[in-house]
Amino acid sequence: MKKNTMKNRMKDFARKNLTALSLKFEDGKLLLLDQTRLPHEEVWLESFTPEDTISHIQRLAVRGAPLIGVAAALCLAQYAQSGASSEQIKSAAMRLREARPTAVNLMKAIDRMLETSDVTDFSPSALLEKAIEIFDEDVELCEKIATRAAKLIEDGDTILTHCNTGGLATAGVGTALGAIRKAHESRKKIHVYVDETRPLFQGSRLTAWELQKLGIPYTLICDHMAALLMSQGKIQKVFVGADRIARNGDSANKIGTFSIAIAAKYHHIPFYVVAPNTTVDETCLTGKDIPIEERGAEEVRLERSPKDCQVFNPAFDVTPAELITEIIRA
Amino acid sequence: MKKNTMKNRMKDFARKNLTALSLKFEDGKLLLLDQTRLPHEEVWLESFTPEDTISHIQRLAVRGAPLIGVAAALCLAQYAQSGASSEQIKSAAMRLREARPTAVNLMKAIDRMLETSDVTDFSPSALLEKAIEIFDEDVELCEKIATRAAKLIEDGDTILTHCNTGGLATAGVGTALGAIRKAHESRKKIHVYVDETRPLFQGSRLTAWELQKLGIPYTLICDHMAALLMSQGKIQKVFVGADRIARNGDSANKIGTFSIAIAAKYHHIPFYVVAPNTTVDETCLTGKDIPIEERGAEEVRLERSPKDCQVFNPAFDVTPAELITEIIRA
Repeated sequence: MKKNTMKNRMKDFARKNLTALSLKFEDGKLLLLDQTRLPHEEVWLESFTPEDTISHIQRLAVRGAPLIGVAAALCLAQYAQSGASSEQIKSAAMRLREARPTAVNLMKAIDRMLETSDVTDFSPSALLEKAIEIFDEDVELCEKIATRAAKLIEDGDTILTHCNTGGLATAGVGTALGAIRKAHESRKKIHVYVDETRPLFQGSRLTAWELQKLGIPYTLICDHMAALLMSQGKIQKVFVGADRIARNGDSANKIGTFSIAIAAKYHHIPFYVVAPNTTVDETCLTGKDIPIEERGAEEVRLERSPKDCQVFNPAFDVTPAELITEIIRA
Repeated sequence: MKKNTMKNRMKDFARKNLTALSLKFEDGKLLLLDQTRLPHEEVWLESFTPEDTISHIQRLAVRGAPLIGVAAALCLAQYAQSGASSEQIKSAAMRLREARPTAVNLMKAIDRMLETSDVTDFSPSALLEKAIEIFDEDVELCEKIATRAAKLIEDGDTILTHCNTGGLATAGVGTALGAIRKAHESRKKIHVYVDETRPLFQGSRLTAWELQKLGIPYTLICDHMAALLMSQGKIQKVFVGADRIARNGDSANKIGTFSIAIAAKYHHIPFYVVAPNTTVDETCLTGKDIPIEERGAEEVRLERSPKDCQVFNPAFDVTPAELITEIIRA
């Protein structure tokens, strides 16, 4: 029995190679694209241990709510395959689960991994199967919501997006940026305004890089320029992703999203959130229940401010449901 | 007569030395603090010719709507004193007037300089007198509006400000930041949230530097974080300056101001504009008549985006009067 399981597991690992824009799982080895080096360098990081993956997640080498869930699950499967004990797996799962506090996809993915077994005995092959299921499911959910959201985009639309919600942020085609890609691929003429997304420039570094690769016309702007563009009639629709959606529809997303939503409301411009169901947290009744990660001062200071000046650096904000035209989810 | 004028002129130059935080006029020589080097270096630039001053203004070594008016006037006075012909003065005035298009203080100061004479013959001493008058008047106007606006600040208030509107931006105590300084000096306990002000970081580089010098407690944030702070009850009032105010009260100010005003309205937070009368343009009926400067792509790109990607970089936006609680002016 034990021998058979091992054989099956080896077969599974040999059989299943997973490939996403910023994640590869090859012969049981987890490879992650270092997103901090984009757009100028494409460096793949090997993740040997849970500590590696936690570090990659915390310094945003791996980011995007759906992707960190998938990466954490595969990391745990790899760890089990390397011979970790059930105790070690459980402990690593808890540390992975807490790597970042806002995106609920991470917690949900880990919880699903832990549910593959009773408390005492994890099966490496069951963990691998579950991780692959989580990967495949994210690909499928992205496909569904991107296709559905793309229908809201009309020929000639100019669209604003914030942060990065594309292939880099998910195992699949992306969420909000996935919709933009689908619209472009169905030959709608569109133009994208890309918020640079301070402090870490996920817009200028990542979304611009993806759009460039896809051949979708775009213009880079600073985050606070959107209101001016809206007042000039230059933005028809806003599409963003989410990191956690409360039961009432309040949606946490990259810091700055809330500001855009208020400006969109003021200008009567539709504001869409595109997110897989793995982003919904039924245990949060409203946005008030969503924990907001605060990150280090040095991300904001950038050597441009007085040394050691005090900084507030929340990584997310919550857009109230009343400002959201529709949440496209599946 | 000619001899007397010359003598008076020399006397005037010898008599009047002007000192502001970022501008000195010493023995007829114009010195300007290079604001692009702050907060880490305090480098004073000599301005020998109108071309020097135009270059300093265009690359924002000298900035702030009131200050560029004052600097341009003193530059012209210095140029006249150096023996420039009336034709040369007129031509330099026109080039200075067009150095930057949005802040009307510049055009108004130049126009006042030109009005010191009929078309054919400029008097260096009259130009100097007028330039000194423009300087002194800015000091006085700042004093008045800052004192008046400071009365709106209550003990315990937490205030949001955008860009730099302090001593660096004017010949005097500043406008919005002047009010904050006055409130602090009258021993009100206040805390300031400073928008970093992308793309050129006037908030993190200049406002933070001034507040640090003045010992006023502050926290640096990215421009799009204000909405979150407002929703958390952390901001009681917003104070900003202006670069041009239309007759109906629509106010152009540093890009990002409009976005803050919309967020303030949404959260029922008072939004104040503090500006001298030299910022009001009676020839603009509404904000639609205010020209908005667009600047180079490299200010936004910062080596963080794909090379040569398309950028939109407006330096200002217009906040409609309906979003402004009060314009404090004199």
